[in-house]
Amino acid sequence: MSVGLVSTQRVVLYDEGDPLLLSGGAKLVPVEVAYETYGTLNAARDNAVFICHALTGDAHAAGHHGDPSRPGWWDNLIGPGHAVDTDRWFVVSPNLLGGCQGTTGPSSTDPATGRAYGMGFPLLSMSDLVTVHRRLLDHLGIERLHGAVGGSLGGMQILQWAIDAPGQVERAVLVAASSKLTAQNIAFSAVARTAILRDPEFHDGRYAAAGTRPDVGLSVARMMAHITYVSEHLLGEKFGRERRSDGPPRMGTDFQVESYLDHQASTFLDRFDANTYLYLTRVMDYFDPFADPDAASRAAAYGTRFLELSFDSDWRFPTHHSARLHEHLLAAGGDSVHVDLASPWGHDSFLLQPPGYHEQIAHFLERD
Amino acid sequence: MSVGLVSTQRVVLYDEGDPLLLSGGAKLVPVEVAYETYGTLNAARDNAVFICHALTGDAHAAGHHGDPSRPGWWDNLIGPGHAVDTDRWFVVSPNLLGGCQGTTGPSSTDPATGRAYGMGFPLLSMSDLVTVHRRLLDHLGIERLHGAVGGSLGGMQILQWAIDAPGQVERAVLVAASSKLTAQNIAFSAVARTAILRDPEFHDGRYAAAGTRPDVGLSVARMMAHITYVSEHLLGEKFGRERRSDGPPRMGTDFQVESYLDHQASTFLDRFDANTYLYLTRVMDYFDPFADPDAASRAAAYGTRFLELSFDSDWRFPTHHSARLHEHLLAAGGDSVHVDLASPWGHDSFLLQPPGYHEQIAHFLERD
Repeated sequence: MSVGLVSTQRVVLYDEGDPLLLSGGAKLVPVEVAYETYGTLNAARDNAVFICHALTGDAHAAGHHGDPSRPGWWDNLIGPGHAVDTDRWFVVSPNLLGGCQGTTGPSSTDPATGRAYGMGFPLLSMSDLVTVHRRLLDHLGIERLHGAVGGSLGGMQILQWAIDAPGQVERAVLVAASSKLTAQNIAFSAVARTAILRDPEFHDGRYAAAGTRPDVGLSVARMMAHITYVSEHLLGEKFGRERRSDGPPRMGTDFQVESYLDHQASTFLDRFDANTYLYLTRVMDYFDPFADPDAASRAAAYGTRFLELSFDSDWRFPTHHSARLHEHLLAAGGDSVHVDLASPWGHDSFLLQPPGYHEQIAHFLERD
Repeated sequence: MSVGLVSTQRVVLYDEGDPLLLSGGAKLVPVEVAYETYGTLNAARDNAVFICHALTGDAHAAGHHGDPSRPGWWDNLIGPGHAVDTDRWFVVSPNLLGGCQGTTGPSSTDPATGRAYGMGFPLLSMSDLVTVHRRLLDHLGIERLHGAVGGSLGGMQILQWAIDAPGQVERAVLVAASSKLTAQNIAFSAVARTAILRDPEFHDGRYAAAGTRPDVGLSVARMMAHITYVSEHLLGEKFGRERRSDGPPRMGTDFQVESYLDHQASTFLDRFDANTYLYLTRVMDYFDPFADPDAASRAAAYGTRFLELSFDSDWRFPTHHSARLHEHLLAAGGDSVHVDLASPWGHDSFLLQPPGYHEQIAHFLERD
């Protein structure tokens, strides 16, 4: 079952009289947020479940916009009778701050100059993303969340939320997340950013005004990142060394895995923005909430229940990331459960349905 | 001990009257080869050990060119009293066909046009590289090799050599090598090539004539590849999340691991060529000698002794690559030993000295 036809809504959450104060000190105004909701908020306003998307996601998590064959990115998880059951929960799914799918981000127009912010956009922290999520809840008249669910960067937002607003999230589901990136994680993102920043079409992030886009840089970034999102096993099973032709070797695309990466890049260019890629990867690089020794205690003290799910083939944020996060919360007296799931598909397993995965989430959202 | 001052020699091995016939059917002429030698060829001419370099290596494997603080890339392995002992062995180390350090490659001048071949250079196979190595031996008056040693792509050349010229290599040391790349291996190389091929300064490989170079593409290729050459553990130990400054977050280089990758890229640009990167990675992609069911038998029948060395932290060509290669040779009745060495440094361990590594090579070269 699908939630069916849905539409993305937009709301201005911060304006001239009420600017967004970022943790780095800068003010941002206006801030518009795109979001979708599925299901019905009950009279007690206590059945809301918040969805936080990953690096390249958007507000359109479930249902469709007119073409049922093109559902939202987490449509297998969210819907009537699904693990995030829209017959029971009121689901809120925004595009995050810094995004490029309706929420204010670095490619939005800077009212002070009348052109895109580009590299003039202030750097964001994970707390800034959470601040805007919380403002959206205010707008919707919701004080506390029955639950919040997010994968990868989405899970990181929820951890920060539990630290910044203890108790507001009653049940936190952190899938394939991390409490801090490793040097290798940062390294991969650094290469992706180099490809974008040094693309001659980048124009300091104001490429739209120049009538161009850093498509080469963003393609390379996406292709490389995609390799890290899937397991070596998956690529081997799916493509092996199969070629598209029987002809002689050639320099251009020939192996099926090359064709697959080309396709990943071109569909990505149709839907994503290079500036957002830069800013959101940087949010992840600097994320390290437990560097504050009191953070885990704050998150633990107000009874938030945590579920960390990891996948045993994930080599982007391998199991030890979730395990460490879990240990931090446990050590602070938190209510935390870590489950490592068997899945052959790597980091992107969070978008798929390995055995037991959705059941874990459904069961957890039912917990008292 | 070092072999001391050495110089690179050059020789034209194929000319108009005697062109190099490539396995793909094309002819290449002239073909010049840069090489170095260390030690002394004995009167019986039976003490030669051949060195095959990896993707980004060159002929300058040992000793120095005038500055002892800048030795060759395998100076820890090759020298008086070293594992490849130049007091006993006559060591030959060429730059391979398609290279950019003195041997004819895609950035060489095409005599037919008077400008660089660029993408007009014919695609090469591993056998073509071996053919030129063998011609160099002819030039040096050497019929058989006491041994051949190579890491990564270098090991792959030696495997092909043992198949193409059974018995000519008496002892084959294949370090961190593979008999065929996986889909993930090909994928990483495909992204690197995309970065180069789509760099607007690439000019179909004739960038020199345009007075430019695809530095952005080659930098991105190198940075990404470098991540795959080292272990996550090594990056974590060496850099962790250390920053260069205590200041606020910034988009530009800040974490030490970013600075390290920047440095890797800039030193690489000083010594390497984008066309060669394209052509040699493609040689590796298509390499699959055991697709010929008789290949292993040919290699095994003439008594070549094989030693495959792998490193337990290598995730570019993990241990299973060497294990599979070994199994192919064993199944064909070959004389093969596979040793997996404990090393924390990943694929690049072949350039370093994890415990037991050099001893394995030294001992093996002494074998009857």
